[in-house]
Amino acid sequence: MHRVAIIGGGFGGLYAARCLRRAPVSVTLLDRRNYHLFQPLLYQVATGTLSPANIASPLRSLLKRQQNTTVLLAEAREFDVAARRVAIDSGVVDYDSLIVAAGATHSYFGHDEWERLAPSLKNLDDATEIRRKILLAFEAAERATDEAERRKWMTFVVVGGGPTGVELAGQVAEIAAHTLPGEFRRIRPQDAQVYLVETASRILGTYPAKLSARAEAALQRQGVKLLKNALVTGVEAERVEYRQGDRHEQLECRTVLWAAGVRASPLAEQLAAATGAKTDRLGRVCVSPRLSLPGHDEIFVIGDMACLEPSPGEPLPALAQVAMQQGRYAASVIVAQLAGRQIERPFRYRDYGTLATIGRNQAVADLHVVWLWGFAAWAVWLVVHLMSLVQFQNRLLVLMQWGWSYATRNRAARLITGGTQLPPGTNHAGADAADAAEVMAGTEK
Amino acid sequence: MHRVAIIGGGFGGLYAARCLRRAPVSVTLLDRRNYHLFQPLLYQVATGTLSPANIASPLRSLLKRQQNTTVLLAEAREFDVAARRVAIDSGVVDYDSLIVAAGATHSYFGHDEWERLAPSLKNLDDATEIRRKILLAFEAAERATDEAERRKWMTFVVVGGGPTGVELAGQVAEIAAHTLPGEFRRIRPQDAQVYLVETASRILGTYPAKLSARAEAALQRQGVKLLKNALVTGVEAERVEYRQGDRHEQLECRTVLWAAGVRASPLAEQLAAATGAKTDRLGRVCVSPRLSLPGHDEIFVIGDMACLEPSPGEPLPALAQVAMQQGRYAASVIVAQLAGRQIERPFRYRDYGTLATIGRNQAVADLHVVWLWGFAAWAVWLVVHLMSLVQFQNRLLVLMQWGWSYATRNRAARLITGGTQLPPGTNHAGADAADAAEVMAGTEK
Repeated sequence: MHRVAIIGGGFGGLYAARCLRRAPVSVTLLDRRNYHLFQPLLYQVATGTLSPANIASPLRSLLKRQQNTTVLLAEAREFDVAARRVAIDSGVVDYDSLIVAAGATHSYFGHDEWERLAPSLKNLDDATEIRRKILLAFEAAERATDEAERRKWMTFVVVGGGPTGVELAGQVAEIAAHTLPGEFRRIRPQDAQVYLVETASRILGTYPAKLSARAEAALQRQGVKLLKNALVTGVEAERVEYRQGDRHEQLECRTVLWAAGVRASPLAEQLAAATGAKTDRLGRVCVSPRLSLPGHDEIFVIGDMACLEPSPGEPLPALAQVAMQQGRYAASVIVAQLAGRQIERPFRYRDYGTLATIGRNQAVADLHVVWLWGFAAWAVWLVVHLMSLVQFQNRLLVLMQWGWSYATRNRAARLITGGTQLPPGTNHAGADAADAAEVMAGTEK
Repeated sequence: MHRVAIIGGGFGGLYAARCLRRAPVSVTLLDRRNYHLFQPLLYQVATGTLSPANIASPLRSLLKRQQNTTVLLAEAREFDVAARRVAIDSGVVDYDSLIVAAGATHSYFGHDEWERLAPSLKNLDDATEIRRKILLAFEAAERATDEAERRKWMTFVVVGGGPTGVELAGQVAEIAAHTLPGEFRRIRPQDAQVYLVETASRILGTYPAKLSARAEAALQRQGVKLLKNALVTGVEAERVEYRQGDRHEQLECRTVLWAAGVRASPLAEQLAAATGAKTDRLGRVCVSPRLSLPGHDEIFVIGDMACLEPSPGEPLPALAQVAMQQGRYAASVIVAQLAGRQIERPFRYRDYGTLATIGRNQAVADLHVVWLWGFAAWAVWLVVHLMSLVQFQNRLLVLMQWGWSYATRNRAARLITGGTQLPPGTNHAGADAADAAEVMAGTEK
């Protein structure tokens, strides 16, 4: 039996596996995690609207009925392309065809030390950690005895004006303005400041300029402060430094969220070294128009890990749509090869358009035939995302929670898990017990 | 304004705070976590049926409209009962009346080193950790190359035959028998062994003997193996040792869950030392019939932290019902004192009965007027628990997920979060790459 190994259970890997369900092959799908994650809604977990399980489904459960497929919870370590073998943490997997779809991770532009202070959003653990950070910041502000300290806790900086950064900034502003007011006694959550820092001259750079402008206006109405043409030059525990033109500026803040650079999984580098393929500046493997590697028709690289340039200098974007279509294409090439046919047609991306939300009733949509913004775009966004969730139960659960949040502006999943310890240096060292006592009891007297 | 400090936002503390909502007092509710947890359903999070947010609600949100109440995310550190002051991690809180409801934690009978290997179930982080352990065990079994190793991963031991232990054992058996089958290619999840180890001669020792027998029969039908009169004497990474009568036995297993001893929060000991109150053998503070401490009419201790013996030798059980009623009573005493009245009536527990579930369609209920078991008890259990959830949205979400799980036997929240690393020593050191290769590809060839 022809053995297909698939690395990664994201959009690319999962769709490839599904398309092979009736093929005369045996499929092994490897993933480091036991679930397929619907990443486009991850920011809603990070901001307390949805629960992790609402947007994640166990891979085993999704592929249960597909008898020719084995799911392995394992991490790919090394490629032996000559022997057609992948070393994993608990052995090796032999293959006849290999589909690598290990995705991407965030890049800190060579400043990996910033990651600890400015988490980014790639998986569920990141999302609950960011949720913890945002909620703890308001708690710390409520406890702070010093006004400057309080202001730092109430300042949030999101770095990166792509869709994720825009969504995060919009949600944090909404939490501050609509979810939390009335719940605190010493701070006014509405006073929180949310900054969105973008290197380029406009946010959502891959969208038409008009939609960027609409998104900027919507964000500003929500109270988000935009810093454009601003390059972050330093991240510390209590400040972010940036350069805007010739000016060096800084923001005093305790919470920084990173949504800027993207970098392909380190497996890309390895695979390139093993096969002699090239990588681009984001570390992605450059693939042939048939998504395979030079001299290795049996190895496909798809999704965020692959760089394909249909027109020179215009690589396909890192979108779920691209990964899904590439997964289907790679599977069809394998099936054709086995049947002795050749697929001549190179991979062609069918671009149905892109969507980004900013907040309640606010989104932008570039559907090529038409541009939408405001409520119309938001409605399209809502339907598209709801229908794209892989399990029917999750569609129902998400719909219910969205309805609830929309009506009450509350968020069901506002939990601080993984410890409530504030970072060091937040014990209000300046205030001795007696001072603190006054402050603590101040509003009650 | 009369200041009331409440330590702990569990059933006792939350109900006390709510009963003070119209009183001429200012309330400060302290909790280490930002949510009130509906502990009776915690085992359903640990076994993947519900999401953490379904059974937890932010305390701030619950007490938002109660203008006389401040919620503080803080940990109580020390009591200065003479000055009527509690030291917390970020200052102090002064009080005129104090209600301590800090609950209980699990006890390992002096073997705290077992905790690392055999987690117990007290909060949401424990629950996701136990979920991780259970799901990872099946993943490790699927990856194991050695039959003995596989058997260890497929053996689950639950220590303690109280309601939590019974519920956990029942759920693990159900996961193995009904949720996972068909999802693995190398193991049969149905082959998993689940042991329930109980020191006494019957499980659910606080229930009538007839109901214990019913519960035992139901568990055995589910395939759970009962080890009664068995005292655990050792917990190691790959085995549990126990003594049954004169025989020393052991079980080779990789997953041990602890649901045995209970011990009051360490704050109980501190409070006893500060006030001269006594503690019982579980570390609970012995309180007066009015729930206060000797010589300190202004300090109330309620819930799992308090020991009250209406009849000598028969302390009230550690149940949510008791804590809620005590919270209400303590609040009413404070209100009466402020109005210049005295409440003469001591606290009296109204026992409406107790319920424990074993699994699908199986529960036992001791409602005093009637004993129920099987489907009837399960239906009562379901309604009571659903109606007890504090937020309407959560009732809907839980109902939907229960309906779904009941119909499909699937579990929505089967996520392994917090890392998928297996514990050390599970890299199948015995198998070299070539051996492993054969095994890994074995089913595919």
